[in-house]
Amino acid sequence: MLNFQFVSPTKIIFGKNTEEKVGEEVKKLSDKILLHYGQGSIKKIGLYDIVVESLKKAGVDFVELGGVQPNPRLSLVKKGIEICKKEKINFILAVGGGSVIDSSKAIAAGVKYEGDVWELYEGKGTLKDALSVGVILTIPAAGSEASMGSVITKEEGWYKRAINYDILRPKFTIMNPELTYSLPPFQTAVGTVDMLTHVMERYFTNTKNVDLTDRLSEATMRTIIHNAPLALEDPHNYNVRAEIMWAGTVAHNGLLGTGREEDWATHDIEHEVSGIYDVAHGAGLAVLFPAWMKYVYRHDINRFAQYATRVWNVEPDFFNLEKTALEGIKRLENYYKESLNLPLTLKELKVPDDRFEEMAEKATEKGPLGNFVKLYKEDVLNILKLAK
Amino acid sequence: MLNFQFVSPTKIIFGKNTEEKVGEEVKKLSDKILLHYGQGSIKKIGLYDIVVESLKKAGVDFVELGGVQPNPRLSLVKKGIEICKKEKINFILAVGGGSVIDSSKAIAAGVKYEGDVWELYEGKGTLKDALSVGVILTIPAAGSEASMGSVITKEEGWYKRAINYDILRPKFTIMNPELTYSLPPFQTAVGTVDMLTHVMERYFTNTKNVDLTDRLSEATMRTIIHNAPLALEDPHNYNVRAEIMWAGTVAHNGLLGTGREEDWATHDIEHEVSGIYDVAHGAGLAVLFPAWMKYVYRHDINRFAQYATRVWNVEPDFFNLEKTALEGIKRLENYYKESLNLPLTLKELKVPDDRFEEMAEKATEKGPLGNFVKLYKEDVLNILKLAK
Repeated sequence: MLNFQFVSPTKIIFGKNTEEKVGEEVKKLSDKILLHYGQGSIKKIGLYDIVVESLKKAGVDFVELGGVQPNPRLSLVKKGIEICKKEKINFILAVGGGSVIDSSKAIAAGVKYEGDVWELYEGKGTLKDALSVGVILTIPAAGSEASMGSVITKEEGWYKRAINYDILRPKFTIMNPELTYSLPPFQTAVGTVDMLTHVMERYFTNTKNVDLTDRLSEATMRTIIHNAPLALEDPHNYNVRAEIMWAGTVAHNGLLGTGREEDWATHDIEHEVSGIYDVAHGAGLAVLFPAWMKYVYRHDINRFAQYATRVWNVEPDFFNLEKTALEGIKRLENYYKESLNLPLTLKELKVPDDRFEEMAEKATEKGPLGNFVKLYKEDVLNILKLAK
Repeated sequence: MLNFQFVSPTKIIFGKNTEEKVGEEVKKLSDKILLHYGQGSIKKIGLYDIVVESLKKAGVDFVELGGVQPNPRLSLVKKGIEICKKEKINFILAVGGGSVIDSSKAIAAGVKYEGDVWELYEGKGTLKDALSVGVILTIPAAGSEASMGSVITKEEGWYKRAINYDILRPKFTIMNPELTYSLPPFQTAVGTVDMLTHVMERYFTNTKNVDLTDRLSEATMRTIIHNAPLALEDPHNYNVRAEIMWAGTVAHNGLLGTGREEDWATHDIEHEVSGIYDVAHGAGLAVLFPAWMKYVYRHDINRFAQYATRVWNVEPDFFNLEKTALEGIKRLENYYKESLNLPLTLKELKVPDDRFEEMAEKATEKGPLGNFVKLYKEDVLNILKLAK
């Protein structure tokens, strides 16, 4: 086990009708906020009205900024920064999914950072202070509601880049599983893939003796795997939606990475794909992670065999652990295809193969990706080809 | 799943040599502290000198208060409160195990509480503010290093009572598994029982649909069960000590109780026993929890069968789940006896049966115990007899 630091201070307020408490929670931290949201789904499900009423009742002033798109854009972030500075706002309430939260974190960072906020995402600056962010979560997937990360896309050149700072972890997150009832099946499915991939990016590690994190990770994956198809069958099942929602947070708040080296190569590759083609992040991961697995599993067959056995109930063949390992990868693919109805190839995602070279180049321009196996441009190209 | 709030803001600093950072961490929060510890073991293992040097180097003033006993006493807490008030101290550094941390939390509470601190433990007052506490953990067991709880014993009448407040969660906890190498086998064993019982008190619940917390709990229990005997065999095995140490924190920071009703009857009963007889808390639990299980398992045979199967690898007998359930309890008892070398009866702990009546009376004087099954005086008496 490696030395580590772990802090996850986000206050989780979980359950039915919890969104009604938002004004009260915000009021403890701020009198004037930016209310940040996406493209209107929060109005359709009636959440917007509840939030506005709760804020007004608590005496919280707010300025609105809607319009966050999936793969949230730098231009809107800059607009948010401008508003916050002009209006002397010190708190951002994100109402939505990962894109809205990531956009909020970027604004929170940008207001306090002296240079251009994109410098942070390019790794050219260091963040020392940020505004506070609170969340009402409507899409369980990205785990951004308790994570330290924010991923933003710069339209010019279509760069999608991430930052990670503990000070960006939201102060509170309100999670009512009922708010996820209306998610379309595709959203539920790609959210599931996103969560599972957050765990797997941490699970495939070179660090030995990580019993607890392995087992906690397997527990989280099994819970997600079991419940997601039930949510597709019965979208209004509270308990099933609740399991998925809470698992999505646990998957990415950092607990499952404690004491081990993490990978994240597949996320980096996917960022190149969805940066250019605007593919749903989870859909990209559903295609790319199995391809990554096939490319690297020989590096540690025992770990892949453990994964197959403990996560997918593959009976281990102790005389052929490679077979066991491969069966685990196959079950993951089958699950994505059969249980979540997701495409398994880039072609199905309408990602042609004519810019693979460019993506592999961009992904590795700052050096090799990942840790489990270091991936150079050629490796990324091979993985893209495996996913074709 | 039930609605819940969860917050666990303690910053975990885990790994080799991390105790050397204590001065730096404290300095961020305070210039003058109370250094609180137990009966000298931290001097024997050289930790005291490291801490003092680190504090001095960081320019942190400190006043010392050693002498915390197992089952920490109210009289010392009061002494600590007096010192903090007199010396205008605003931070307490606990260096030790659960008793030292609990004593520190009690002092932290008492300094800010206007009445007598014991009122809080009697449930006659409410805590609104407290000093900050930081921890260097030397005994993995109680989980107090990231929990909201504090358990104190009032010598007059030998009452052992608990309080739980989020504001008592330590600001940081430093955990170096090497500091646990010198723990005697008995301490390692009873610490293991304490951790496992923290999980089991939450696991046996009437709340349905708690998939994730069930699986995370099973993951934590399996990790503890696997590693504790290895630590007894090889006390200087870093990885084994690290797994146990981190699992002890996860077992009790509240994550494994999210969304469910918890029990805690056995802890309450044990507090009566160790309040009078000064038995090691974990040793008391090793005797009492299996007795509790035997007394209540019929209330939900399926849950006990799940426990047996998923935690102890009992092959389920689907035509006789009661048998499966009982086999799980038996394996726990065997584990305590064979793998941890612990006594299984109160008699072996030198607890005679002549004050059972008094303990059952005291335990239930404020109403029935527990939630899984509500226990009245007669039930507590029966459990004590089962544990005789």
